[in-house]
Amino acid sequence: MSEKNNDDKTENNLDSSNVFTSIEEENKEDVKDLAYILDLIGKNDIKGLRTFVESQKPIDIAYLINDITSEAEVVFFFKTVPSDFTADVFSYLDADQQERIVKAFSNKEVEVIMKEMPIDDIVDFVEELPSNLVDKVISSTPVEDRKIVNKLLNYGDDTAGSIMTTEYVTLLSNMYAEKAISHLREVGEDAETISTLFILDKTRKLLGVLYLDNLIFAKEDENITSIMNTDFLSVDSETDQEDVAKLMKKYDVTVMPVVDKENRMLGIITIDDIIDVIEDENTEDISKLAGVQPIDNDYIKTSPWILAKGRIPWLMVLLISGTFTGLILSSFENSLAVLPVLVAFIPVMMGTSGNAGSQTNVVINRAMSLNQVTTRDYLKVLWKEFRVSLITGFILALVNFFWVWFELKVGIIVNGNILMASSTQVAMLVSITMFLTIVIAKCLGCSLPILAKKMHLDPATVSGPAISTLLDITTLLTYFLLTKAILGL
Amino acid sequence: MSEKNNDDKTENNLDSSNVFTSIEEENKEDVKDLAYILDLIGKNDIKGLRTFVESQKPIDIAYLINDITSEAEVVFFFKTVPSDFTADVFSYLDADQQERIVKAFSNKEVEVIMKEMPIDDIVDFVEELPSNLVDKVISSTPVEDRKIVNKLLNYGDDTAGSIMTTEYVTLLSNMYAEKAISHLREVGEDAETISTLFILDKTRKLLGVLYLDNLIFAKEDENITSIMNTDFLSVDSETDQEDVAKLMKKYDVTVMPVVDKENRMLGIITIDDIIDVIEDENTEDISKLAGVQPIDNDYIKTSPWILAKGRIPWLMVLLISGTFTGLILSSFENSLAVLPVLVAFIPVMMGTSGNAGSQTNVVINRAMSLNQVTTRDYLKVLWKEFRVSLITGFILALVNFFWVWFELKVGIIVNGNILMASSTQVAMLVSITMFLTIVIAKCLGCSLPILAKKMHLDPATVSGPAISTLLDITTLLTYFLLTKAILGL
Repeated sequence: MSEKNNDDKTENNLDSSNVFTSIEEENKEDVKDLAYILDLIGKNDIKGLRTFVESQKPIDIAYLINDITSEAEVVFFFKTVPSDFTADVFSYLDADQQERIVKAFSNKEVEVIMKEMPIDDIVDFVEELPSNLVDKVISSTPVEDRKIVNKLLNYGDDTAGSIMTTEYVTLLSNMYAEKAISHLREVGEDAETISTLFILDKTRKLLGVLYLDNLIFAKEDENITSIMNTDFLSVDSETDQEDVAKLMKKYDVTVMPVVDKENRMLGIITIDDIIDVIEDENTEDISKLAGVQPIDNDYIKTSPWILAKGRIPWLMVLLISGTFTGLILSSFENSLAVLPVLVAFIPVMMGTSGNAGSQTNVVINRAMSLNQVTTRDYLKVLWKEFRVSLITGFILALVNFFWVWFELKVGIIVNGNILMASSTQVAMLVSITMFLTIVIAKCLGCSLPILAKKMHLDPATVSGPAISTLLDITTLLTYFLLTKAILGL
Repeated sequence: MSEKNNDDKTENNLDSSNVFTSIEEENKEDVKDLAYILDLIGKNDIKGLRTFVESQKPIDIAYLINDITSEAEVVFFFKTVPSDFTADVFSYLDADQQERIVKAFSNKEVEVIMKEMPIDDIVDFVEELPSNLVDKVISSTPVEDRKIVNKLLNYGDDTAGSIMTTEYVTLLSNMYAEKAISHLREVGEDAETISTLFILDKTRKLLGVLYLDNLIFAKEDENITSIMNTDFLSVDSETDQEDVAKLMKKYDVTVMPVVDKENRMLGIITIDDIIDVIEDENTEDISKLAGVQPIDNDYIKTSPWILAKGRIPWLMVLLISGTFTGLILSSFENSLAVLPVLVAFIPVMMGTSGNAGSQTNVVINRAMSLNQVTTRDYLKVLWKEFRVSLITGFILALVNFFWVWFELKVGIIVNGNILMASSTQVAMLVSITMFLTIVIAKCLGCSLPILAKKMHLDPATVSGPAISTLLDITTLLTYFLLTKAILGL
């Protein structure tokens, strides 16, 4: 979406307090509106529908339409909306609703929507469309845009090219400020943004960028090359969108030019699209850290099959880890038979070390995404986590010691038939294991993501399973080796 | 930082390919630069230092200075930087470096920095400062800004007021386009942004917002009230910054006015500050979901004590859960004594159900943060997760059945002395437990965060511990009850 669209989007009388209430009260407002809109559709009240729609923002209308399940109602609604409003609403719709409308509409009707839609939105929309409908849309796109849409569709997923738009204003280097402003007035209406203008030479090579405010503050006869910035940032069309986001965030840039290898201007990326990229990347990281494969779509729109497919791999990894823990437990069966109470503490020790490790893993992964930590900080991080683990481990082991001792003394945890060891010995055994495994957990938890990054693997995907498998094994081994050492079993 | 600052920030000759390489190669560039800068400082090479600094962007210089550990070097460096550059670099420094400089500088020198710094950056900086230095800074702030800084300091943490700036351009409603532009040329230089202008009445009530592009496209004699938007969004100074971010994201607004209860204009919030809010909120959510209390600072800057303090509570909760699991295990000691092999499968079952639950918990929490799921979607979500759990549970149980059966048959997992049950029976027992607990895990995993939200608790903080405790208990109970039912032990 464009910065410029601000105007359209605020030209409807929804006041701020209203919007705000609806967010606070979890869209209760929306529910009322949906019933209201369905009622109007049911009564065929075209006039009422138009009045209502015009009192709302396009994105709010789109959210309502997304919730309508009947195809007939959606299509009826869409044919009723004033056409200058249609493209805006349409571009905010979910892919499945867009598809329904394109299917039901004539080529002529699709054309009306395409004419008003920004090119980057057309591209986003066509990308989601089944191939049998792509032709219908492309042939309904204005001829002059068609070539551009086709070209944009060819950029790889998640590249700068795939999120850029071609609707920007260019100036020629021989223009004076006055001429530049009058040129802007002529061509600026269709641009995604005019806050940044681009000065090209005759071969479309990007010479400099000019901020609108500098142009406004310039004298009328000043040459634009003397007020432009020549040390601008730009990215290649193949640059990963996440890297574009990082650059724009770091340098507080609101419009980023996209160029080819010869520095020829291809398009621009605006900050509002970057916010979506940031949120998507965050969702992706969160999903990976939770052991879930990221999904492209809204949760609600995703089928149980797709969701299950994203969750099974991580749970399967746990079966592998389970094989090792099973192996260890069965080989220590004799110790456990002599002192069955030892079994009672296995879950708490495995839980504590597993979570201590995943705490560190998640924190380090996040710090790496935010560039607060890089691989060359490894020793610094390890030293810090080591100290954190000493503090954490000591406090937990201490509390745990007294609690286990108390549980055994009072008989909350029953001691079985033969008590081969004193409560103090068992409490000490469990606490020392806990201390040691927390230290190991925190050191592994910071080492593995950094190692993964160093090996050019995805730290968010790789480190979790590795840490949990290694810790399960380490914890049980530590426990039983200490059992032998302390209790001689 | 401001959009307008773009000009300053790009007025240095760091070309895009350079910046990009440094991000790709994990700041190897920085290392070289730091050594280079320290060398220049060591040689007292003021000229070389200035040349180098002027070839860089302020934020990159700030990153370098953050890594200098010697106070003398930092201060020397700062006294050498050309003063028009100082404020920009200073505002990007870490709090502890800023503090050092303020301490070492005379009032006069602090004054030079404060004069150039945007008001919102002064406020951010003063907030981090120990109280003995606050006076020094405030008294070095230009008199006209001092009152504003003091006022901004009084807004609550994380409110719109605390992140807004007062440097915006206002117009009076009786102005014509031409007059508005000439007014803008006079006063616009100091503003954080001029892309959006604000039209106030005589009591400073906000009547409308005017986008610079609309002003440019307007006829000279047009009254600005006829081209302004009256249906703009605005927020209250006490609005939570996260809600401001949600509004700006949803409606693609780049500048948000902040008003008081009487709709009198107080300040503006720009999109670049909102990006920081979004990242901070994401970090906070990720931390909470990982069972870590969010920290305010960079990971590297935070002491092990603070980090440990943030991690201990969640691990302590596991001790509680451990008490229950211990209790259950010790009360089933007899079954375990008869058939010790049952112990071997406890870790894998607890691991699988715990992770299945936390997968769902994290996914639902994220979907709620992004407003994809609200509490009124509960039944829809539960039904979806139930189906996901049937698929996931079935596949895992199936694979697990054959794997356990194989492990027992081949003797990977030793069967102990007396085998009271066949391999098939044990494999069935473990697999049915796994299936049931995955179903319970996924249903709990989506119910608890939504319930927490409904009860106005923080779903990210509350749901994790509750789910893991409940699942640990449920899994063991299910296992042993099924043992009784299937094996009669």
